Amino acid sequence: MTDPLRSTSGTSSGMDEMRLARIALTWLVEPGTRSVFRLVERFGPVGALRRLLAGEVADQKLRARVESRLVAGDPWEAANIAAEQTERVGARLVTPEDEEWPTRVQELNRLTLASADRRVDQETAPPLCLWVRGAWPLDEALHRSVAVVGSRAATPYGLHVATEIAFGLADRNWTVVSGGAFGIDAAAHRGALNAGGLTVAVLACGVDRPYPMGNTALFDRIADVGLLVSEWLPGAAPLRPRFLTRNRVIAAATIGTVLVEAAARSGATQTLRRALALRHPSMVLPGPVTSAMSVGAHELLREHPEARLVTGVPHILEEVGRIGADLAPPVRGPEQPRDMLDDESALILESVPRRGAFGPDALAAQAGLELRTALRKLSMLEQLGLVIRRDDGYVLAPAAARPSSGPAGQPVQNR
Amino acid sequence: MTDPLRSTSGTSSGMDEMRLARIALTWLVEPGTRSVFRLVERFGPVGALRRLLAGEVADQKLRARVESRLVAGDPWEAANIAAEQTERVGARLVTPEDEEWPTRVQELNRLTLASADRRVDQETAPPLCLWVRGAWPLDEALHRSVAVVGSRAATPYGLHVATEIAFGLADRNWTVVSGGAFGIDAAAHRGALNAGGLTVAVLACGVDRPYPMGNTALFDRIADVGLLVSEWLPGAAPLRPRFLTRNRVIAAATIGTVLVEAAARSGATQTLRRALALRHPSMVLPGPVTSAMSVGAHELLREHPEARLVTGVPHILEEVGRIGADLAPPVRGPEQPRDMLDDESALILESVPRRGAFGPDALAAQAGLELRTALRKLSMLEQLGLVIRRDDGYVLAPAAARPSSGPAGQPVQNR
Repeated sequence: MTDPLRSTSGTSSGMDEMRLARIALTWLVEPGTRSVFRLVERFGPVGALRRLLAGEVADQKLRARVESRLVAGDPWEAANIAAEQTERVGARLVTPEDEEWPTRVQELNRLTLASADRRVDQETAPPLCLWVRGAWPLDEALHRSVAVVGSRAATPYGLHVATEIAFGLADRNWTVVSGGAFGIDAAAHRGALNAGGLTVAVLACGVDRPYPMGNTALFDRIADVGLLVSEWLPGAAPLRPRFLTRNRVIAAATIGTVLVEAAARSGATQTLRRALALRHPSMVLPGPVTSAMSVGAHELLREHPEARLVTGVPHILEEVGRIGADLAPPVRGPEQPRDMLDDESALILESVPRRGAFGPDALAAQAGLELRTALRKLSMLEQLGLVIRRDDGYVLAPAAARPSSGPAGQPVQNR
Repeated sequence: MTDPLRSTSGTSSGMDEMRLARIALTWLVEPGTRSVFRLVERFGPVGALRRLLAGEVADQKLRARVESRLVAGDPWEAANIAAEQTERVGARLVTPEDEEWPTRVQELNRLTLASADRRVDQETAPPLCLWVRGAWPLDEALHRSVAVVGSRAATPYGLHVATEIAFGLADRNWTVVSGGAFGIDAAAHRGALNAGGLTVAVLACGVDRPYPMGNTALFDRIADVGLLVSEWLPGAAPLRPRFLTRNRVIAAATIGTVLVEAAARSGATQTLRRALALRHPSMVLPGPVTSAMSVGAHELLREHPEARLVTGVPHILEEVGRIGADLAPPVRGPEQPRDMLDDESALILESVPRRGAFGPDALAAQAGLELRTALRKLSMLEQLGLVIRRDDGYVLAPAAARPSSGPAGQPVQNR
């Protein structure tokens, strides 16, 4: 057996000792372990590793865990192999010493979860290093980013909404971050890709073998134009607890997190709980109360007053975009005749496009009303000066089109 | 022209002067008008009416409004006609002087709405009197009540949920109150009726001509087993502003209000805003963000942290249940509840069979009492935990069947 205290840095991989130590530590103890992170803070990666290998740590549990792991091999050797493999699979290692390190993940240092009785809820320290596949610098990709997460067993409603939201965010130059899973995650990545935007998949396994296999084509596209990210070594398997461990990185690395659909107490709700604990904007899309896939979402909204109900991109930008241009269009304004409208009239008015004319048939269809009703309401709206009848259909009157005069139905059109 | 100062009380209608004055005031100025309510508080209904007719009021606008209304006829005469009509259509007038007046509506005295720049948002005083069709005493029907309101242009989702919720509430002996409109309102009434429960439609027109016509069969059924209520004279038309005026009564008369579906800024959202302003439990059911019919619901949840997201009956009971329990008169002390019964109540209790259920009709007949009296007494017996209301009629509660046992805990079984 090789001497575990021996440093094998500077071998075939050509990687410096500190980076190799970070890999070795990740190989030795599961990412997120607080005691290891504290050792690294105090003694640096190399010093921390040496102490662990020499058994010079007070934490009895940690010592036992290291001992049992050492049976599987030598950490320095494992790190060297991983470094070579990283290069071979076209990935790179990013560490806190690198310029592209996403500093926001360091916030995990102060993450504490209420009623943290599981290991994954306690061991939420920042990652020691990250593997990345893709051309974008990691920090730039995550600078203006929103996580869009949800259930794997999503409904058509959830998939539709996740795609729309991701498209809208990417279209406004926001990076969409998710976990690469089936369902909502995949829809979010695809929505962003469809908008020609940037998307980042944070994985719970090695970046060389993204899970699930069924999303292989999607992962290839993400690696091409976005980023695949993981805190596990190449070749690492997607073990069950790793998904929750990974979720803390999704919550921490982004400005805010949007939950689209989630069953009660599902993994996606855990991501949002982590975003809440980090005091990042934590957003939840409601759904039909008849859908089991919205139970988790509604539970979060009921339990956490800080969780914000959002219904679309404008609301999300209101939460994450501190820039004036990103603010949601105001839904209120001075009271206008339109505020006195009954439901049907309001529906019709909201169906009139901001630009161009619509015939009564089209408006009736859009509003879900009978043509006769639509015509009656249109005539009333015309009398109120809210719409104008032209040869080619109805258009919004200038007063109705001015944003200051109220919601003008835009939030509906945006959704 | 008749002398407007002349009282024509004691004519054909046989109604006393104070009640006639309340009708006359309602005829003279639209319900909810604060200045009129204050006059009544200060001078009584007769004194207030005399002052208004003599032009002895400081409020210039009110004076002008009264003058223009007097062109249409004499208020005392109108009141007498209305009193006769009330009897003819099988309705009754209920005033604050009556035992069955629902005292909760007096809370409207302290209702102030934010940004109240419309008349309907300012003139939110309690009703001066109410017309009622149906056998139940009004106060008892509203004692444990929840309003379920929403859009007329409801979706199948909304209709399904409203029906389910109303059924569940009625099944647990909660009265379901709504506005009798198409869509959510009608679904709520129907759900309660299907559960064999009590439902109250608060109308924006005379109780003799409930609007909309399309719900005539529903209104007939409600009048049979529940109540139709209005603060407008028989024959009054459902003018547009009256719906919002009416909504304040729905919000005030119930313990809490549930909004099921609503377009942006629709009338139903206004009912919930009134419930919020009254600090009554104000509950909102979310829906798909893709549905225009949930925009109003989601807006309310975003704008009002006090508005509670609910997904079904258990959540609703969580909000209103405690209040309902608090309102139920505690039955304590060494005396047996049955010892405190008046003769009529004792008669009714004795008429309840030891086994099986009896309907109120049969019990009234057996006890030799009027149906209305029987219903009032039965409701009291129910509160005392002596009888239990079931779908098939009234049965003896275990406590009543066992004369030696105390009332403790029995009311809980009723809920």
